[in-house]
Parts: sequence; C-alpha cells; structure tokens
Amino acid sequence: MSKITQLMKNEAFLAYSTYTAIVLLKMMLMSLITIYFRMTRKAFSNPEDITALGNSEASKKYLQTDPDVERVRRCHLNDIENIVPFIGIGLLYALSGPDLSTALLHFRIFAVARIFHTIAYLTPLPQPSRGLSWLVGFVVTISMACRVLTTGLYL
Amino acid sequence: MSKITQLMKNEAFLAYSTYTAIVLLKMMLMSLITIYFRMTRKAFSNPEDITALGNSEASKKYLQTDPDVERVRRCHLNDIENIVPFIGIGLLYALSGPDLSTALLHFRIFAVARIFHTIAYLTPLPQPSRGLSWLVGFVVTISMACRVLTTGLYL
Amino acid sequence: MSKITQLMKNEAFLAYSTYTAIVLLKMMLMSLITIYFRMTRKAFSNPEDITALGNSEASKKYLQTDPDVERVRRCHLNDIENIVPFIGIGLLYALSGPDLSTALLHFRIFAVARIFHTIAYLTPLPQPSRGLSWLVGFVVTISMACRVLTTGLYL
Repeated sequence: MSKITQLMKNEAFLAYSTYTAIVLLKMMLMSLITIYFRMTRKAFSNPEDITALGNSEASKKYLQTDPDVERVRRCHLNDIENIVPFIGIGLLYALSGPDLSTALLHFRIFAVARIFHTIAYLTPLPQPSRGLSWLVGFVVTISMACRVLTTGLYL
Repeated sequence: MSKITQLMKNEAFLAYSTYTAIVLLKMMLMSLITIYFRMTRKAFSNPEDITALGNSEASKKYLQTDPDVERVRRCHLNDIENIVPFIGIGLLYALSGPDLSTALLHFRIFAVARIFHTIAYLTPLPQPSRGLSWLVGFVVTISMACRVLTTGLYL
Repeated sequence: MSKITQLMKNEAFLAYSTYTAIVLLKMMLMSLITIYFRMTRKAFSNPEDITALGNSEASKKYLQTDPDVERVRRCHLNDIENIVPFIGIGLLYALSGPDLSTALLHFRIFAVARIFHTIAYLTPLPQPSRGLSWLVGFVVTISMACRVLTTGLYL
C-alpha cells in the first residue's frame, strides 16, 4: 500500500476516481450493446464482418443500417460528448480542493443522470426524460468548470 | 485553501487547467448549437423527440437530416478528435516540467486555433482557413507529445 | 530537471505517460489518413473544401461518401470509443500504485492491440482478427478498472 500515491489518499480525488471508473465502464457497455444489436438485427458496416455468417452472396443484404443499432450508436456518441468533458474538468475540479460533500454531490448527480440518460435513450422513454437527464449532466459539468476557473486562472 | 493540492500551485499545471476548461467548455457549446439548429431547422433523429411538437402523423417529416445540423455535428466530432489528444497529452506535458512561457505558448495557440476552427467551420469561411486552424492545433499537440516522450520514456 | 513533478518520477506513471502518448499519436494519425483518402478518392463533406479544386460546378460531384473514407472514419471513432476509457481509467490505475511489471503488461498489450486493430481495420484483414484485437484492448481496460475500484471506493 505504500506505493499508492498521495493523490489517492485525497478523499475528493478518490471519489473522482470511483465515479470516473463507473461512468467509463457504463460508456464501454455501449460497445457491447452495439455488438448485441448488430448480431441480432443482422446490420453490419464492414463486408468482412459478414463472411463469417456463411454464403457471402446471400449475406450481402446484411450490410445495412438498423434503427436500433443507430440508436445505440447515437447514445454512445452522446456519452463521449458528455463524459469526456466530465473526466477532463472533473480531474481539475478534484485537484482544486473542493469540499468533499460538494464534490460527491457533483459526481453522484452526474453518474445517476448519465445512467438514466442511457435508459431513457434505449427504452426509449418519452421526452423530456432524456433531454432533462442530459441537461442535468451538462449543468453539473458547467458547475465544476466554474469552480476550476475561479480556483485559479492562468491565461 | 490548504486543501488545494500541490499540483494546482504549479503554474504550468494551472495554465493547463485553465485552457483545458476553456476548450472543453467550447466543445460543450457545440451541443447547444446542435440543439438550436435541430429546433430551428426541425431536423431530429429520434421519433420521441418529435411527438412534443404536436400531431405525430404530420410531424414525421421532421425525422430528417439538415445540412446545418450535419455541419455542427461534424464540427463537434472534429473537436472530440482533436481536444481529446490535447487533454491527454497536455496533462502529461504540464507534469513534465516545461518552461512556463513555452507551456503558455502551446496552450494559447491551441485554444485560439480551435476557437477559430469552430468559427471557420460554422460560418463557413472559405478554405484553407478551417484547414490551417486544424493544422495549427494538430502541430501544437504533436509538439507537446515530443516533449512528453523526450522527458522520459518507459517502454 | 528539478521542475519535473513528483509524479513523473514514479515509474508506473512514466510508463502510463509513454503509452498514452503513443496511442494518442496513433489516433491522431487517423486524421491524416482520412485527409489522404478524402484527397485521393475525391470524397468531401463540405462544399467549401471543393472550390479549391477548381470549377465549382463540375466539382459538385465530389460532395460524396467513399467506402475507404467511411472505413477510416469508423476506425477513428472506434479509437475514440476505446482510447478515451484507456486514458481515463489508465491514469487512475497508474496512480493506484500497481506493480510496475503488471502495469507495463497492461499498457503494452493495449498499445499493441490497438495498433493491430487499426491494421486489421484498414487492410482489411479477415475477421475475427479485428474483433479479437478490439476485445483484447477492451479486456485490458476492464482489468485496470477493477484494480482502480478495488484500490479504494468512495461512493
């Protein structure tokens, strides 16, 4: 345990670490769901993915798009667009010495909002459930960015 | 203030923190611009986004692509492709103990190049303004990567 | 050298730094390959990119998609989907004080898997070469995430 760096002894950083791992694992889950839908809906993007399915002439029709596959891919891209800023700004936020309870509040709300966003996108739930969960995650990230920029600016 | 970690007292790291927050906020702005264009151009990807607009039969035609929406989305994706390497390599660069003035030069040029890239993409300005601003950001990131790899390699 | 921060003296962190720079540079290479294919296949997304090619009436047909360009773009997006989690989780993993040899094993396997994935995607090699190289990188990232979450959880 002596090799664990100082940062990991900082509770706010440990909380950042926990929630970053959780939201990134959730994001990686989208890859598995994409594969599942590509297999069950038989909708592939690459000719070489199809030949394994047998007769290559008959299987050419599987080079198609499918609404469910496209939905998962949009959800995955939305994750990237929102989780990348969370990780980058969240790291700086955790290093800026926030109150532990405030930091936990930010991380917990973001994680719950993104998990709910995925459920709302894939079910799909009627709007504005997906829109609101996206907005909550967005506002949490803005809030952390404000803290980072007010802690110290070096332009 | 005593809780602010040592890293945040490092001026090069503080500069990295400032510019990372700026470029990530700029990237997040693309989400808002996408929403604005989807609303005004009435071009949506998900059926559940349309029902809020009223009569669902008549509004099916809004499940369409729009050149302006697609343009913002390409700009957003280009941001991700370039800002992710900047954040990852920039963090290591800031930790590698660069001269403060050199580090500031890298961060400032990158931020200005990416902001100009967005303006050039969305206006759109005639080429090669967008291409050049992309290239400037690209070269800055390569330059930081060279510094990171020459500071210490552990293969 | 005295300005180099403590982190960079940690061998596991230095290894993380080296491999992160390598995989991000590899990812940035995809932008150059995209440009190369767009030029040689004459397949562009933006009208302003074409006017530089001369007569704008005759060149409108270059506003097209090309299978090779789309293949590179899918490969680039797959990189983002997999390298972002590697960087985020890998940073926390490197800070969690892993055995140096175990950490190097993770980073080396991931880097080789992603480089092979790109070769398999762009050649293209017959499946399951691309699928397996994707899976190897995915499992390495999951393995690092497990280490991060078992080192310390703060929910």
